[in-house]
Amino acid sequence: MAEARETGAESGGAPPRWLTSDELRAWQKFIAVVELLPGVLDSQLQHDSELTHFEYYTLAILSEAPDRTLRMTALAARTNSTLPRLSHVASRLEKRGYLERRPCAEDRRATNASLTAEGWQKVRTTAPGHVATVLAHVITPLSPEDISDLDRIMGRMLGRLDPENTFRASNE
Amino acid sequence: MAEARETGAESGGAPPRWLTSDELRAWQKFIAVVELLPGVLDSQLQHDSELTHFEYYTLAILSEAPDRTLRMTALAARTNSTLPRLSHVASRLEKRGYLERRPCAEDRRATNASLTAEGWQKVRTTAPGHVATVLAHVITPLSPEDISDLDRIMGRMLGRLDPENTFRASNE
Repeated sequence: MAEARETGAESGGAPPRWLTSDELRAWQKFIAVVELLPGVLDSQLQHDSELTHFEYYTLAILSEAPDRTLRMTALAARTNSTLPRLSHVASRLEKRGYLERRPCAEDRRATNASLTAEGWQKVRTTAPGHVATVLAHVITPLSPEDISDLDRIMGRMLGRLDPENTFRASNE
Repeated sequence: MAEARETGAESGGAPPRWLTSDELRAWQKFIAVVELLPGVLDSQLQHDSELTHFEYYTLAILSEAPDRTLRMTALAARTNSTLPRLSHVASRLEKRGYLERRPCAEDRRATNASLTAEGWQKVRTTAPGHVATVLAHVITPLSPEDISDLDRIMGRMLGRLDPENTFRASNE
């Protein structure tokens, strides 16, 4: 990114503008967090529970749903995922006994995913360590004002990253 | 994450506390951005330049260095990466003619990575589309106050994610 300042003047297909120095500084910190955070979340979960963050998040979202069941399409949206990616992960979780997939009773073309009793237990035992990691690395260093600012800023980004609000994070 | 509220009371190894509803709302938006943004950056770069974001960022950091050269250890730190991951990517970039690795003249045990003329040209032609993507998805929806808040908040998170400031994003 940063090289944009140097190359911009010489470049052919110029974008509307380059980043200002304030924007560049914020962007570099932000992209560092985006690179580093998934590794921190995955490491703790893998080490303590043999789950990736995406696997844990999938089980956690199901644990909150009515009857701990969601259509696969809805579960993909709630986990910020595509259906192919979710299907791949659901297969792995199914093999481990945490999740079951069945045709939806109201619409046989649709598939439901349900948390098993074992999956529910897995979420319960995994949650404390994961929440402690999120608190330590993300939440605790922030003031209440930071939390409110983070919510506003991420909501604005999601307005562009997910303009149709497919992933339903924007207005929850 | 959200299930933490339900399972917390029953769970055995309780963390210091669970997330408040304000923290949970901000966290869910933030984690959605962390999941979605890399795909948006990678898609544009892959489509237009056949580079991943990490490959582009590696070339871009080198393009700014004196003599367009850095030690591999310094380049790993600047790209928020481990040395093994960077070495793997450097091999790919070397095969494509964008980067060269040579023993460091001052310390033969160390390895330098340099941008080739072709790599420099690649950065120049790739930067405009990438910057336009960053502007459209991250920067433009934010006010100057948001940018300043984002910088402060990400700096605080990096204080925990990278306490030794190894990756040098915190105070740049």
